[in-house]
Amino acid sequence: MTIYDISEKAGVSIATVSRVLNDSGKVSEMTRKKVLDVIQQYGYTPNAFARGLGLNTMKTIGIMCADSSDLYLAKGIYHIEQKLRANGYDSILCCTGYELESRAAAMNLLITKKVDGIILVGSNFIYEKESDNRYIADAATQLPVMLLNGALDAPNVYSVVSDDYASMYSATLQMIESGVKDIVYFYNSTSYSGMRKLAGYRAAMKEQMIDREPLEQFYRGSHEDIHAMTEHLKKLHDDGLKFRGVIAADDTLALAAVKYAREKKYRIPEDFSILGYNNSMLANCCDPELTSIDNKLEILCQHLIFTLMGILAGREMPKKTIFSGEIVKRGTTR
Amino acid sequence: MTIYDISEKAGVSIATVSRVLNDSGKVSEMTRKKVLDVIQQYGYTPNAFARGLGLNTMKTIGIMCADSSDLYLAKGIYHIEQKLRANGYDSILCCTGYELESRAAAMNLLITKKVDGIILVGSNFIYEKESDNRYIADAATQLPVMLLNGALDAPNVYSVVSDDYASMYSATLQMIESGVKDIVYFYNSTSYSGMRKLAGYRAAMKEQMIDREPLEQFYRGSHEDIHAMTEHLKKLHDDGLKFRGVIAADDTLALAAVKYAREKKYRIPEDFSILGYNNSMLANCCDPELTSIDNKLEILCQHLIFTLMGILAGREMPKKTIFSGEIVKRGTTR
Repeated sequence: MTIYDISEKAGVSIATVSRVLNDSGKVSEMTRKKVLDVIQQYGYTPNAFARGLGLNTMKTIGIMCADSSDLYLAKGIYHIEQKLRANGYDSILCCTGYELESRAAAMNLLITKKVDGIILVGSNFIYEKESDNRYIADAATQLPVMLLNGALDAPNVYSVVSDDYASMYSATLQMIESGVKDIVYFYNSTSYSGMRKLAGYRAAMKEQMIDREPLEQFYRGSHEDIHAMTEHLKKLHDDGLKFRGVIAADDTLALAAVKYAREKKYRIPEDFSILGYNNSMLANCCDPELTSIDNKLEILCQHLIFTLMGILAGREMPKKTIFSGEIVKRGTTR
Repeated sequence: MTIYDISEKAGVSIATVSRVLNDSGKVSEMTRKKVLDVIQQYGYTPNAFARGLGLNTMKTIGIMCADSSDLYLAKGIYHIEQKLRANGYDSILCCTGYELESRAAAMNLLITKKVDGIILVGSNFIYEKESDNRYIADAATQLPVMLLNGALDAPNVYSVVSDDYASMYSATLQMIESGVKDIVYFYNSTSYSGMRKLAGYRAAMKEQMIDREPLEQFYRGSHEDIHAMTEHLKKLHDDGLKFRGVIAADDTLALAAVKYAREKKYRIPEDFSILGYNNSMLANCCDPELTSIDNKLEILCQHLIFTLMGILAGREMPKKTIFSGEIVKRGTTR
């Protein structure tokens, strides 16, 4: 039995349970009794408690990411690591790859290392199939789990996300309004965040009564292989599909679209419009430079650490915090 | 007194001291006596010993890097992390920035966390002033310190490097032989590796009796700000400097040179040649694509972990291992 189970059975918040066990006042005698009754009735796991109460802490946070060489994830890790250090915490990084099994293993490893909390960097940690997300909910019975740009409805799991849906929705509308209608949506992830972006594109297309399913293109190759991405678009063209715009789920895919348009001798943005996502340094690398959506990664990280520090101090913190993205206009859109 | 002091005073290797204390045979009675005499004479620090002998180990390696959001460093961390895990080790990552003070602090923190060894990723950890490198030599009296692409001559410090000098030397020669003589060397780091690259460029220029110091251009701004880098080159042009080639110390700087050449309407590579370094994904981002030097990062990382595992097992390992780089020819050179 964990601190969460007690909070559920007693019908009070985790912070309240923590206060009772910590004897840190501001709890009514009735609530106090309820909590202690549950503990007496069900027993408890002292280790998980000690951790939950900030006793015996290693002052270390576990960080998990799929691949630290991914430009966006690397930036996230950087911000998180810096902000943890500023709060007196060390971090242990595990690069897990994309397989569920290795993720569950990394999660257990971090728990045995007695970290005070775990941060999952990147929405790819949330799987489409709900039962595949058990490894997160299970871990969260022992320590707080923070999701950067992912969301999962489970106790002791906290999310800080960018509103990818709204960003993609308004960017798609803008492109349509600029006169481009044959827009390919080019994506390579069906993560939580990936599906939200796709939904934003779909909603805008539908609102403008543009309904063309084949224009959604899923790319399966390496996330760094720009050539393979460009080939994907060339094949579409060779298959007879007409398109004059690409909305990409990240900047690398968008860069491949720039390459494609240049090879086809389209003028950008007069004949061909391209939008990227993440506003990474890649956006400045091509010619013309890439219009891209900035999802405010540093602000997300800052808020995630703020939330985690609050939780570890036993304060009541929001389960989910949503920030808005912003379109950074450069040369690839009208 | 540490395991290193004993090895020095007894005139035997650290591995031998380790074998004596570990009672793992293959040591002559004379050597054995020498080691035990030194210990009796000077006393010793049991903790440092225990760590040196693989007793009481946490099976955790500390990794330090300046900035995990740097494309090249992030890739290095990724490979190292993967290979450590494959060997049953966890890792603790510290992003230190570029200041000596924060590095010394991170080093001490990792030592108090009882890591089994420390890996410094990136040659920027080695300072030009010798006394500034004391923090590394000091740490190495307590645990092995591994340098990825840096070198420092101190006991218990091990290096795995790419031969940046030779790579830059032959790339510069190639560019000169292709008919380009007015070559700017564009760099932003005076780290160990940075100075080796510069020296390779200088040697090739000197050998061809091209002696023009102002063509060495040091860029001081952010390592991601391509616009500022491009401005730097434009200013050179405006100041009246004539140049028809850029050899850059990394791919980002080279990308800025591509931007510069495009703005000046030079044809690449007919009128203007550009060479990058690292062969990162950026090399595929521009048009034409970038010729770049591949310094075999993954192989370096693999060998570094192989060396570290050997040291931790008490085997004699090479102090320094040097790999050759390779020029990957693409569209920016003739």
